[in-house]
Amino acid sequence: MALIVQKFGGTSVANIERIRSVAKKVKEELDSGNQVVVVVSAMAGTTDQLVNWVKEVSDIENNEQGAEYDSIVASGEQVTSGLLALTLQSMSIKAQSWLGWQIPIKTDNVHSKARIKNIDVKLLKEALKNGEVVVVPGFQGVTDYGRISTLGRGGSDTSAVAIAAALKADRCDIYTDVDGVYTSDPRRVPEARKLNKVAYEEVLEMASLGAKVLHTRSVEMAMKHHVPTQVRSSFSDAPGTELVEEEEVLERRLITGIAYSRNDAQVTLVGVKNAPGVAAAIFGPLTDAEINVDMIVQNVSESGKQTDMTFTVQENELKKAVSELEKVKKKIGYKSIITADNVAKVSVIGVGMRSHSGLAQMMFKTLSDEDINILVISTSEIKISVLIEEQHLEKALRALHTAYGLDGK
Amino acid sequence: MALIVQKFGGTSVANIERIRSVAKKVKEELDSGNQVVVVVSAMAGTTDQLVNWVKEVSDIENNEQGAEYDSIVASGEQVTSGLLALTLQSMSIKAQSWLGWQIPIKTDNVHSKARIKNIDVKLLKEALKNGEVVVVPGFQGVTDYGRISTLGRGGSDTSAVAIAAALKADRCDIYTDVDGVYTSDPRRVPEARKLNKVAYEEVLEMASLGAKVLHTRSVEMAMKHHVPTQVRSSFSDAPGTELVEEEEVLERRLITGIAYSRNDAQVTLVGVKNAPGVAAAIFGPLTDAEINVDMIVQNVSESGKQTDMTFTVQENELKKAVSELEKVKKKIGYKSIITADNVAKVSVIGVGMRSHSGLAQMMFKTLSDEDINILVISTSEIKISVLIEEQHLEKALRALHTAYGLDGK
Repeated sequence: MALIVQKFGGTSVANIERIRSVAKKVKEELDSGNQVVVVVSAMAGTTDQLVNWVKEVSDIENNEQGAEYDSIVASGEQVTSGLLALTLQSMSIKAQSWLGWQIPIKTDNVHSKARIKNIDVKLLKEALKNGEVVVVPGFQGVTDYGRISTLGRGGSDTSAVAIAAALKADRCDIYTDVDGVYTSDPRRVPEARKLNKVAYEEVLEMASLGAKVLHTRSVEMAMKHHVPTQVRSSFSDAPGTELVEEEEVLERRLITGIAYSRNDAQVTLVGVKNAPGVAAAIFGPLTDAEINVDMIVQNVSESGKQTDMTFTVQENELKKAVSELEKVKKKIGYKSIITADNVAKVSVIGVGMRSHSGLAQMMFKTLSDEDINILVISTSEIKISVLIEEQHLEKALRALHTAYGLDGK
Repeated sequence: MALIVQKFGGTSVANIERIRSVAKKVKEELDSGNQVVVVVSAMAGTTDQLVNWVKEVSDIENNEQGAEYDSIVASGEQVTSGLLALTLQSMSIKAQSWLGWQIPIKTDNVHSKARIKNIDVKLLKEALKNGEVVVVPGFQGVTDYGRISTLGRGGSDTSAVAIAAALKADRCDIYTDVDGVYTSDPRRVPEARKLNKVAYEEVLEMASLGAKVLHTRSVEMAMKHHVPTQVRSSFSDAPGTELVEEEEVLERRLITGIAYSRNDAQVTLVGVKNAPGVAAAIFGPLTDAEINVDMIVQNVSESGKQTDMTFTVQENELKKAVSELEKVKKKIGYKSIITADNVAKVSVIGVGMRSHSGLAQMMFKTLSDEDINILVISTSEIKISVLIEEQHLEKALRALHTAYGLDGK
């Protein structure tokens, strides 16, 4: 008897008919003699509707407002978890929904992007022992103050993996509307192939870099706790992609995938004084405002006394970032801010990079051959990212996919 | 400084614009130097949508299913309370939403029609003292098992009055889409007039008998705890109707109003053995199944050995009632069950009935003059109800409104 955690995303529970299909997938595992915990997202579109209402009345500028935001948006998962529990009950399967505060799933107090601190598995274990299916709304937890928190968009993946880790589940199956992890986005790169296995670290980079596979934190958590995780389709029985340790990726390959993101915005501070502490003066206030800064490039001018600082932030945080920087203009002593949001970030990812040189050069040459200008470059051990003009995105993806030998046959 | 509890129904919070209007009404009370607790319903239509989803997957036949139902439908109020708190915050008013389990509002364990047992006012009092507006989702509480419960449709009125009672509020204002309590339903009786004051007991009968003014339990609670309650319109500043003690109703009148209900269904058990204990045998199982039985009439046949038992139940509980009765057919020993749901209950209500005779006779004569057949009669100290065929409803209402001298000038 294995313990399986199944997670179903918004399109998988988009209506009653699909919730019934989910219930059938749960039943299949039960019929195989397994115990099942199911984590569900809100019905597709629900969270957007709730967020839009919030936006109509508030800008969510502080944590107090974030608490109300969380209480509002968490309701979507509350509904689907109850509906799935009822559907299972109507199939004579013992089932109960467990809200974040009922378990409880304890998080920190940073509303709208809370982190899970602890999951109390006592009640869940009792329920499982009692032969019940445990249905958990994803995305939500509860703070020490007893208020509902949410983990940020896509947080249901994290809920699923965290519960799998806490319960020491034998498998965590992430059901989604794609049937696995691909070498690139099949909608933009027709030659993209599904990967059978992918290293946690690779999929982590892919997720961080914009591939809409899994929520970043869920992969971090799966990696940290060695949770056997699988990405598979809600709408077929085809095998998905397994997330495994690096050494388990048998297929030899240099590059695993090419990811992209269109949610970045470029910020350049022109004429920054080139003096010690200037980076801290710039990025300190952004950190305090919980704005994530990504690629950073510093260009020293000829005189050496002034520099331009370029970096990227999430597009939806651009306004806030600029406003924070304007507050400290005097202190930093820059001349002006230039921003651009018609940019895209393209990244090539692969653990093979650790042992092979020349992979960055292939990227630069390929883009150069396509006449695509690189705005910013950023590298890490297993990825290279470049910022380019958004209009060249598709051309860049396809050229790179071919250049790195990823095209399917 | 007075403490005011304001309650806004579904149409008053139906969209963001109306939630803003609610926030303005809250601000008016604050500007007058008062403390405010606001109780809100779900956006109009939301609860119906949620209930429909539940019906698609389940019949809600037991309390375990009821628990999931409650968790699902309570989400509607969770959303509006958060949105109102955010709206107030965006007006620089300190505000926080407090869900049923966060306060907590403790109820019994009868899901989907729970009763409030206790409201812990400690945290709310602190918040009020701290200058905050307390926003509470109506309709919901939490059981001893830590599961979300709901008070039955219209339960937000009860939430408001219960909170007003627990906090010893100076006033409880129930804002709704009508501007007060009328002598009858203005949509069916054009001559209906708004009442300035009405006795708790009268409005209690009206509510029990189908007038959609206030949730029955809310009136019971207001009466029991002497909560000064007012029904008024969300969409105007006109004074509403005050609920007062019987002796405070200054205006001399015999009959206060005429209510009706179309939600009743008639059940007749034909050929019941006329023996001691038969009523208990019939109504025991219905009580156990938590089916409310209303008007009861027993007709002894000529032989005296057999009787027909006629009673009414809520239309939506008819199926369940019949099924329960079929289970005990042998034990009760009846011949057959006849049911009818094309019936309506019409009731005349007034504390004046206590001291005046002949008021029932006026009802029977008026209906007789209109050629309307009376199916069942039921009376209490301050009301007379009759069951008639639904097709005659409007005619009956108007004739009675005129006969009892209620028509406006």
